[in-house]
Amino acid sequence: MPSPRIAIGPAPYDPAAADWIVRAVVEGGGTPVTPDEGADALVWLPFGSPDQLRQTLEAEPGVRWVQLPFAGIERVTKLGLVTSERTWTCAKGSYADVVAEHALFLALAGLRRARTRFDATSWGEAAGTTLFDQRVTILGGGGITESLLALLAPFRVEATVVRRRPEPLAGAARTVATEALDEALPGALVVFVALALTPETTGIIGARQLELMDRDAWLVNVARGPHVDTDALVTALAAGQIAGAGLDVTDPEPLPDGHPLWTEPRALITPHTADTADMIRPRLAARIKANVAHFAAGEPLEGLVDSAAGY
Amino acid sequence: MPSPRIAIGPAPYDPAAADWIVRAVVEGGGTPVTPDEGADALVWLPFGSPDQLRQTLEAEPGVRWVQLPFAGIERVTKLGLVTSERTWTCAKGSYADVVAEHALFLALAGLRRARTRFDATSWGEAAGTTLFDQRVTILGGGGITESLLALLAPFRVEATVVRRRPEPLAGAARTVATEALDEALPGALVVFVALALTPETTGIIGARQLELMDRDAWLVNVARGPHVDTDALVTALAAGQIAGAGLDVTDPEPLPDGHPLWTEPRALITPHTADTADMIRPRLAARIKANVAHFAAGEPLEGLVDSAAGY
Repeated sequence: MPSPRIAIGPAPYDPAAADWIVRAVVEGGGTPVTPDEGADALVWLPFGSPDQLRQTLEAEPGVRWVQLPFAGIERVTKLGLVTSERTWTCAKGSYADVVAEHALFLALAGLRRARTRFDATSWGEAAGTTLFDQRVTILGGGGITESLLALLAPFRVEATVVRRRPEPLAGAARTVATEALDEALPGALVVFVALALTPETTGIIGARQLELMDRDAWLVNVARGPHVDTDALVTALAAGQIAGAGLDVTDPEPLPDGHPLWTEPRALITPHTADTADMIRPRLAARIKANVAHFAAGEPLEGLVDSAAGY
Repeated sequence: MPSPRIAIGPAPYDPAAADWIVRAVVEGGGTPVTPDEGADALVWLPFGSPDQLRQTLEAEPGVRWVQLPFAGIERVTKLGLVTSERTWTCAKGSYADVVAEHALFLALAGLRRARTRFDATSWGEAAGTTLFDQRVTILGGGGITESLLALLAPFRVEATVVRRRPEPLAGAARTVATEALDEALPGALVVFVALALTPETTGIIGARQLELMDRDAWLVNVARGPHVDTDALVTALAAGQIAGAGLDVTDPEPLPDGHPLWTEPRALITPHTADTADMIRPRLAARIKANVAHFAAGEPLEGLVDSAAGY
């Protein structure tokens, strides 16, 4: 089989900055080309915009497969680009381990009173809650949830996974369909949001869901800001309706200066830093290399996007 | 076999406060007595002092077994009370899971920049380090280390354990003897201290060890403050010689107001709160119940103290 011609876009790009992607394509058995040289497939760089992607695809009708560099691709699907005419893959699952790590970090930081304690300048009373033997609920049944269940396993948690189709998931005590979300919230010490953002999951945590959570529970969002109704969250936190929220994503994002969440003591905010560029690089390179090799061999690709579901 | 007479001391105690201990003794098959009624064994309450313990034992020469409520018992061994004349057990291993959890929390908090981020009132650059696939070094080969290795396993870390006798430990890539400590420090992203405090382990992390650690490495101490030379640590942190220190224990402890560690941005301090009273209660009750049952049946006890080693 001839080496597939893999365009790397958008062009022009700084070859030094994209060096590791070119290398991944070559290591996967592909021939790197620029997007105007008649490519079989397109590998899209993290710093390309969805608009540039549309233009590139219009100029390259021969592209049968597009590899996106993100795990969450809602900005691309919104433009209507992701159709069944082409095979689309994204980075879903690739960054799952480090994003799950960040979710665990935010949960432990909340339960063990990181903010209060790290700011203290005086000794204090022992306080905090353990995650051992607790009940948790995880929204989403994808790669982040799989990784998170692995990290939570030694804590002997009883995990309920809420997902579109309630197929069982290794390490979860039970999985329930999204329609049963409200029953899965009471009694959970931590509610993790690890979903793809689609019209159906936008605002999935609103005032009613926050009300259903226990007063000592933490909400942790490592997915996308719009999964959570920010105004409802601000109100719930101010009222002490839940113990707190660990947020790596916000809506709006970036969270503007002066937003009430910045001064809410029950909010632990990190600036979308679950997967940093340093963490992404080797993981995306591995995905690209594997997929170029699969594409060359006519094998199924990893991180396949379901164009109907939109993720 | 008659039910063993188990004194609960020190007396007098508030029966309401010690209710859960009395229940554990009864559930283990023992008969609770007060320390002046001719007991076979003594279960010591968390709020008894070592001096009271000495007096109680002098008044109760028939006591063949003493159960201590702490995991670290250096305050009792210092008084010379722990001899081979009696069987001594402590809570070592009982709180290991939650203490290991706290160690993981402090490591993740350091690596993922908790202090900087939680104090921010403005969005920022993505930054942080993942624990996945990293090298770590753990000082100590006891229960905390066992639990910590279990929590670290899904992170695929390469763990080096430094212990008195370099016997292999499940989940560790290698174990080395304490004499080889200095070779185990370079290259570790996190150095965890999870040792018993003895004359040999006091000051085990001093200026030289901090120098040997990598500049991006974190020190996490969940054992006892005097394992680390505080002055050397203050100097190393101020000089940026290591990335930071997560300390649940300090020397002196409590850390006095105005101590330079309180304002050191590289220090994450929690007030000996890895195992809170709420976490201790069910775990100590389980240990007491199990040991009373073992004692009644003439079986080996859990958490046996090696009177020569002092832990």
